[in-house]
Amino acid sequence: MIIMKTDATQEQIAQVVKEIKKYGLRADVSKGKYRTVIGLIGDESKIPFAHFAVLPGVKEAMTVETPYKLISREYSKFFERERERLVVKVGNIKIGSDGPIFIAGPCAVESKEQLFKIAEGVKKAGAHILRGGIFKPRSSVHTFQGLGAAGREEAEEALEWLREAGKRFKLPVVTEVRGEAQVDLAAEYADMLQIGARNMYNQDLLTKVAKKNKPVLFKRHFGAGIEEFLSFAEYIAVEGNKNIILCERGVLPVGKGKNYTRYTLDLGAVPAIQKETYLPVVVDPSHGTGRRDLIFNMSCAAIAAGASGLMIEVHYNPAEALVDAQQAITPDELKQVIDACQRIHKLIVPGRNEES
Amino acid sequence: MIIMKTDATQEQIAQVVKEIKKYGLRADVSKGKYRTVIGLIGDESKIPFAHFAVLPGVKEAMTVETPYKLISREYSKFFERERERLVVKVGNIKIGSDGPIFIAGPCAVESKEQLFKIAEGVKKAGAHILRGGIFKPRSSVHTFQGLGAAGREEAEEALEWLREAGKRFKLPVVTEVRGEAQVDLAAEYADMLQIGARNMYNQDLLTKVAKKNKPVLFKRHFGAGIEEFLSFAEYIAVEGNKNIILCERGVLPVGKGKNYTRYTLDLGAVPAIQKETYLPVVVDPSHGTGRRDLIFNMSCAAIAAGASGLMIEVHYNPAEALVDAQQAITPDELKQVIDACQRIHKLIVPGRNEES
Amino acid sequence: MIIMKTDATQEQIAQVVKEIKKYGLRADVSKGKYRTVIGLIGDESKIPFAHFAVLPGVKEAMTVETPYKLISREYSKFFERERERLVVKVGNIKIGSDGPIFIAGPCAVESKEQLFKIAEGVKKAGAHILRGGIFKPRSSVHTFQGLGAAGREEAEEALEWLREAGKRFKLPVVTEVRGEAQVDLAAEYADMLQIGARNMYNQDLLTKVAKKNKPVLFKRHFGAGIEEFLSFAEYIAVEGNKNIILCERGVLPVGKGKNYTRYTLDLGAVPAIQKETYLPVVVDPSHGTGRRDLIFNMSCAAIAAGASGLMIEVHYNPAEALVDAQQAITPDELKQVIDACQRIHKLIVPGRNEES
Amino acid sequence: MIIMKTDATQEQIAQVVKEIKKYGLRADVSKGKYRTVIGLIGDESKIPFAHFAVLPGVKEAMTVETPYKLISREYSKFFERERERLVVKVGNIKIGSDGPIFIAGPCAVESKEQLFKIAEGVKKAGAHILRGGIFKPRSSVHTFQGLGAAGREEAEEALEWLREAGKRFKLPVVTEVRGEAQVDLAAEYADMLQIGARNMYNQDLLTKVAKKNKPVLFKRHFGAGIEEFLSFAEYIAVEGNKNIILCERGVLPVGKGKNYTRYTLDLGAVPAIQKETYLPVVVDPSHGTGRRDLIFNMSCAAIAAGASGLMIEVHYNPAEALVDAQQAITPDELKQVIDACQRIHKLIVPGRNEES
Repeated sequence: MIIMKTDATQEQIAQVVKEIKKYGLRADVSKGKYRTVIGLIGDESKIPFAHFAVLPGVKEAMTVETPYKLISREYSKFFERERERLVVKVGNIKIGSDGPIFIAGPCAVESKEQLFKIAEGVKKAGAHILRGGIFKPRSSVHTFQGLGAAGREEAEEALEWLREAGKRFKLPVVTEVRGEAQVDLAAEYADMLQIGARNMYNQDLLTKVAKKNKPVLFKRHFGAGIEEFLSFAEYIAVEGNKNIILCERGVLPVGKGKNYTRYTLDLGAVPAIQKETYLPVVVDPSHGTGRRDLIFNMSCAAIAAGASGLMIEVHYNPAEALVDAQQAITPDELKQVIDACQRIHKLIVPGRNEES
Repeated sequence: MIIMKTDATQEQIAQVVKEIKKYGLRADVSKGKYRTVIGLIGDESKIPFAHFAVLPGVKEAMTVETPYKLISREYSKFFERERERLVVKVGNIKIGSDGPIFIAGPCAVESKEQLFKIAEGVKKAGAHILRGGIFKPRSSVHTFQGLGAAGREEAEEALEWLREAGKRFKLPVVTEVRGEAQVDLAAEYADMLQIGARNMYNQDLLTKVAKKNKPVLFKRHFGAGIEEFLSFAEYIAVEGNKNIILCERGVLPVGKGKNYTRYTLDLGAVPAIQKETYLPVVVDPSHGTGRRDLIFNMSCAAIAAGASGLMIEVHYNPAEALVDAQQAITPDELKQVIDACQRIHKLIVPGRNEES
Repeated sequence: MIIMKTDATQEQIAQVVKEIKKYGLRADVSKGKYRTVIGLIGDESKIPFAHFAVLPGVKEAMTVETPYKLISREYSKFFERERERLVVKVGNIKIGSDGPIFIAGPCAVESKEQLFKIAEGVKKAGAHILRGGIFKPRSSVHTFQGLGAAGREEAEEALEWLREAGKRFKLPVVTEVRGEAQVDLAAEYADMLQIGARNMYNQDLLTKVAKKNKPVLFKRHFGAGIEEFLSFAEYIAVEGNKNIILCERGVLPVGKGKNYTRYTLDLGAVPAIQKETYLPVVVDPSHGTGRRDLIFNMSCAAIAAGASGLMIEVHYNPAEALVDAQQAITPDELKQVIDACQRIHKLIVPGRNEES
Repeated sequence: MIIMKTDATQEQIAQVVKEIKKYGLRADVSKGKYRTVIGLIGDESKIPFAHFAVLPGVKEAMTVETPYKLISREYSKFFERERERLVVKVGNIKIGSDGPIFIAGPCAVESKEQLFKIAEGVKKAGAHILRGGIFKPRSSVHTFQGLGAAGREEAEEALEWLREAGKRFKLPVVTEVRGEAQVDLAAEYADMLQIGARNMYNQDLLTKVAKKNKPVLFKRHFGAGIEEFLSFAEYIAVEGNKNIILCERGVLPVGKGKNYTRYTLDLGAVPAIQKETYLPVVVDPSHGTGRRDLIFNMSCAAIAAGASGLMIEVHYNPAEALVDAQQAITPDELKQVIDACQRIHKLIVPGRNEES
């Protein structure tokens, strides 16, 4: 990390970037109100920091020890006021700003009719962003893999429905890209691209998605520690795309015997991540619990823990859903969730002891 | 489980109990408003259910498949109205009833002065029950093991302080018993006995504590699944003591790298357990996070998830605490936590969609 | 799964396959000595099994419950003699047949000289297949990502070295493909393609690699159960490519405090997997322990557990390695490992009580 | 830790011990061939090391950072030759010395006849020590808890059978103590006391068992990291009893779906522990796999990994066993296991590269 003097000139900044490239690394130039900070991207062991420290306009040249740098609070505080949260815009919706944001819709898009009916329901319930899966990651190849599995034409048709539903109900849309070959296509239609939990470690996909310069909804793998989660989010940030929304969706349960929840929703990760990075964090209680009868409680808990929003699977008739039927709630239930969460958010935020 | 007819007589009930004992098992007789249910305690494979089904006054004789029976909703619904939560009384405090209950105090009792100062602080902050550890379970034998480690006399002196502080500030008191030899002594002084996470599987200790007929605060082991946790709570219930408060305090974190929280607080366990058993559930955010700067958020989240109370470590000068200094909060911070939690509780409870 | 009669004709088999396609599924036709079995690939819930059961030449139409079918022993036993292990050929090397197979080489290819020097060393030590990473999956973007990261030309050059080293020292070669965009290129040069642990869930990569019809070295994710591991191997098999070598490389350690090994090598998985599937299983003690001083013991243990081979990282000067320096052994140490393992293998195999 | 000069006198040593006691700590005096080392037991933060460093006869006074000291190689190397393994004697059997030691017998003692028949079988198969459970830890209170559950008289009778069977077949005997109240009784009859996995954290039980000055078979908890396991073994050592045999018996499996093994046997822990401590390590493949058809493979693997012995559950008719029927093997199968393991041990030990 190269911290420039407050009066460093454009030429001096350009000179540092040029030097960095000589060593085979890339540069992330972050301009704040008073100061510019240049992050190094790549194998830092190659860099002679002493050499950089004496370049004109350079205040300090230092190593950041964590594997995530560009998304860390430590990095941001050199050029921004402390405690700021990055506000990510998806269409006209701001995540990480005032109230909690609700991303809702079917687990999998099954038909145009199903999608539109659910989109209408979630809009009425107060949701802000529409979700719908077209390329479904599944544990078994012998189950429904989403409409996108049938071929490019079918995928495009379903993506077209998603865009249309978004327009009709004034909801920006998000859909998951499961493989590299789907990125270009999905980016044409969606306002935000989702990288699912199973792909958290798929760095080639992360890089390809990042380059689309659209907001990225990035889910934590169920076997990943928080530091690992942030280290992989860094793969997105180094492509110059910091519009990343981190999503906690449950980790592997411990112990023997029955678990009663599909995963263990790690709500402690929400404030813990917020102290490490300025990126907004949302929670997916649908996968996190795998049980529709726990969605209300865990949604409230997530907002109380400080989440900037929720991602919830909705179906007008959950029992009929082709994927994850046991965890979807109805639009009416979603409305109850949103109402309660908004009241909790208002109640909590002024009293929150952020400096403790 | 033997379900009696609504008009079964005392003699018929006694007859069934007698028969059960013949087979080397014990009986748990639960009398509800309309009906009596007799739970079998011990190795059920020895029982000829057909034989019991035809005894006078018996409506039905059946096996309950789960390893926990006496504490299950399934069992309670035969003699109680559904959805009822057992209210456990500790002194004059009711847990599982109206508002959330706050158990607070030092991790370890260090001196009379320290204890009284903290007791005064938590009382003023609005706490309901005073905690204080005298027999401390520790990972390393080469660290402070609590005042009780010095000998019986020292243990008794510290217990005496605890009782006195409770009286002075009108707070029932709870302390942990770490070994069987401490049970009789601790039961003389404390209003509730705590079994720590590391002793969850210690069935001889559970049995001994249960027999004291005092309320038991029973903590989940950090490596235990929910079914296991309830199966061991059953060891307490079979002794005729159902005054059990279950405590979620965090499970082992997943993944590689830094975790940022000491354990993973499993708040999904709170509503999941409440659907399985009628026992009240409280949460310990102090051990669950291991970080004082996360206590506020995770306390709010626990109450939003439906917990009946919280257990929080408090010290007037956390940095000075001999044990777990990094996770204690001050009395002032406790007050903020209690205020926020009470407002969340009021807001949540009427709107909660319990039947979903 | 459709089991044909022993005298079913080619026409009858073709008819069944045609019917299957009508329902939008694919067919895996496995011809054994006496019988042909047709596996269904895709969402089986769409298939009316009763209809298939009465087609000419069909003996039985049934559902296989596990998410892995084509690679299961249950499936293979209808057309093969029981207990057979599939022998996978990599160049002229057979895995799953007689003696244990040793795959060895540098973690990352660093230069032509480094690669050739190590290739010569592992050949002399008795290894059978040369490994060398060109596209390295890494936890931090700020570390060396393999020579392939520099661009297509550099990747091709390093792949060329690998092929050359293989030819020079008569060792078939394996290299990891980390993303879909690397598959075509790597397949031109390597005799076997490796899918790393972090990509186990990356089903689009699995499908793309499978279609190259080269043997696949498929590693278990460190957070995956055995059933999940096999379910994802099925994604390769359904493309008609059953030349899959499964690789156990360690799972996430449990507990608090220091672990002393990088991962927990799950050797019980070796015989457990062998009872579920006919695919050969190898073990990677380098990642499994992360410690060069444990490689000898754990290699011996893996072979004693029944593994068909080992994958070991080797460097002539481990401390110099750019990636995972602490887990590489020298060619001399490799020779000791191979000698001991071959002696254990001879000793164990005749005495093994496989039918118990 | 206080390291005495080689010519330190008895008086000087006694003086140091006296000083240590002044500070409320205890002393562990280890006399080696050339030198005496005094370990501090208790809260070291109270000790002014500078003061001790200048006492007559003292060479050095230093802190050992690990939570286990008295059992660490680091400690032992000051008074013993390096790499020495402690040999623990159980009756006339030496563990940690030459060949591998086999501890075998029924999971639970069910009757005198059953015990004697199995004892005879394991003796003929070549086992060295007889195991038999009388106080059984169980997940469900509604299952068979061992003959000891019926009362003191029944417990004593079963213990008497165990002692008798040991005498008849010339096998030292080991039995588990589950609670503190059983320690005195069991110690009268058994040659070694076992502390089960579920009681690993039960420090009061550890202390009580340690004081009996009998060898202790100490099992790792399934949720415990290696450092924690050794930290609790230290609770036994500080009572002056270092005759501890550590037992790896499997840890919690990772991942979703079916596991196929009951636990994950952590064989990498065997050499890892041996590098940290001089105590012998044995492996329990019966609990570690939970499957009789995997015992042969995993026994061979454990010995190949360097274990000093195995603990195996045996029953002449496994299907009949009241506890853990699916994991017992027959005496004939045990003989095959012992034969194979002894051959592997001979083959491995001379070639083992212990200094790597």
